[in-house]
Amino acid sequence: MSRPRRRPSVAELAAGIRAGDRAMLGRGITLVESSRAAHRQEAQDLLTELLGETGRALRLGITGVPGVGKSTFIEALGHGLAEDGHRVAVLAVDPSSAVSGGSILGDKTRMGRLSVHDRAFVRPSPSGGSLGGVARKTRESLLLCEAAGYDVVMVETVGVGQSEIMVAEMVDTVLLLLLPGAGDELQGIKRGILELIDVVAVNKADGRAEVAARQARVEYESGLKLIRSSHAAWQPPVLTCSGLDGQGLDRVWQAILDHRRHLEASGELDDRRRRQQLRWMWSLVEETLLSTFRRAPGVAALLGALESEVAAGKTTPTAAARSLLARFENDVRQNEIDPLP
Amino acid sequence: MSRPRRRPSVAELAAGIRAGDRAMLGRGITLVESSRAAHRQEAQDLLTELLGETGRALRLGITGVPGVGKSTFIEALGHGLAEDGHRVAVLAVDPSSAVSGGSILGDKTRMGRLSVHDRAFVRPSPSGGSLGGVARKTRESLLLCEAAGYDVVMVETVGVGQSEIMVAEMVDTVLLLLLPGAGDELQGIKRGILELIDVVAVNKADGRAEVAARQARVEYESGLKLIRSSHAAWQPPVLTCSGLDGQGLDRVWQAILDHRRHLEASGELDDRRRRQQLRWMWSLVEETLLSTFRRAPGVAALLGALESEVAAGKTTPTAAARSLLARFENDVRQNEIDPLP
Repeated sequence: MSRPRRRPSVAELAAGIRAGDRAMLGRGITLVESSRAAHRQEAQDLLTELLGETGRALRLGITGVPGVGKSTFIEALGHGLAEDGHRVAVLAVDPSSAVSGGSILGDKTRMGRLSVHDRAFVRPSPSGGSLGGVARKTRESLLLCEAAGYDVVMVETVGVGQSEIMVAEMVDTVLLLLLPGAGDELQGIKRGILELIDVVAVNKADGRAEVAARQARVEYESGLKLIRSSHAAWQPPVLTCSGLDGQGLDRVWQAILDHRRHLEASGELDDRRRRQQLRWMWSLVEETLLSTFRRAPGVAALLGALESEVAAGKTTPTAAARSLLARFENDVRQNEIDPLP
Repeated sequence: MSRPRRRPSVAELAAGIRAGDRAMLGRGITLVESSRAAHRQEAQDLLTELLGETGRALRLGITGVPGVGKSTFIEALGHGLAEDGHRVAVLAVDPSSAVSGGSILGDKTRMGRLSVHDRAFVRPSPSGGSLGGVARKTRESLLLCEAAGYDVVMVETVGVGQSEIMVAEMVDTVLLLLLPGAGDELQGIKRGILELIDVVAVNKADGRAEVAARQARVEYESGLKLIRSSHAAWQPPVLTCSGLDGQGLDRVWQAILDHRRHLEASGELDDRRRRQQLRWMWSLVEETLLSTFRRAPGVAALLGALESEVAAGKTTPTAAARSLLARFENDVRQNEIDPLP
């Protein structure tokens, strides 16, 4: 009997996801990604229903500049884990998809070998909407994957500053992939990112690049020492590996497990997740307030001119902010804004 | 004839500040620091009146961990500049003063030698209010100092992460002071700060510490190279100096002037200031929206319980944010919030 074509109810979705049904998980994520108001309400009902089943996965963020071989690495690591009996979900945060409405990460053939594995689930980055919107959708998708029984959830970034910070805010462990032989490469990493990193691996340590990779490993290690506190309880290990031929992937996974054990033993895992939840709530509040503010008709009508005046030094930022805030207050009182979501 | 005891009008303040009257400048800053609504309006009138006279100073931020000798350095550098004919103002951003309502920086005897110099003006950090409030007051005080003819305005931080970022957002050049012999010291500098630095000086390079300071200089230089882009148009020079015996202060000042010329020649100075103005406006909008939100009675009544539920994983952050936003909207519509400033 084929599945009914009508949209499944929240209860059906919840039951399907709990049963580990990949198609139902996909439909749940589609619901979470929808920006229609009715869907937003259903998505919240679904998440609330499944909340008790979440929180059990190893949440791994994977970052690195474009070209470092993230997809190949994730496919190789994920395939190995799935073969070992893990259930592996791969999500992505691609801020360019928020701007362009699509990107190479949306490519259907992405991670072809992993995506057809029985115990794997690969989902491209949600597209469209704001950066904050992409983050929200990915966080909520991660919860659905956990409820569906995936015990390893990898979240990939495209290696641009803001998306790396977003991913670090939703995972337990952040793995940074680096290229061998690019001696200046730590430079390409945006401010603040290095502090978020828990494990470092020099990828593409294969063929002729193997020696360069080992040298790079030593350089990165001393570079990291310079800027990380030597008193921190966890010192990020720097390893080499090859997503292409699979070499060293076991050591990288071991380092990830070591970090996980460290988080659990020190009680940091619970703390980190609690803080992430609260920050998430507040970032939703901030984002909604500000976007509502910008769209309020009185504000929108005045904004361009005021920004020009401020940039030209003709108005103080304080005076401009006060004018805008007065307009906003008026708009809300006159019921001229869309209801907050 | 002694100055009238009554509070000067905005016109009197503006005239006094334009004439370079230090007492009137002090009263103008007191007005800017006041949080009373009537004073806030007068302060904006004063700033608007003087806006045409602002923007001409070299705006220098000075940062470094507590104990690095910032006050001694600033007093020595400032005194030398004042003797050379410059007019030097010193402001401070001390976030602890926002929390505790006062701090050692508020000490009246601070920089005793510089503060009595004819061509110098030393003002302690504004106390009380939020971090954002301290930043606003300092930014506005900086404008008043410029209108009073001070051509060098130094803004000192107490060397804590957030205040360093705030100061970098209001100055043209950021000078980082480091200690000699503390090989691990780059570690103490919070994430993102190193990217904000334009000139580095190893202070306390005097007496027996001179050799250690020279060694530290070399170490810092290679440490900085590792994490700064080698393609950037400006490479922060690393120097040694002693605020105590005055050695090397001339080279530090020269590096500051070099950076200034670089900013002017590349057009970056105008860009940077324009961006700072716009960011300032938006941070005021955000700060006001969020603090109004938190204080709204419907939000305040629900907040504690919801935060606990979110932290405990009993409610999703999204559902909690939506409940709070609905309460806020209702509070505004029912006129239950204080008017926005």
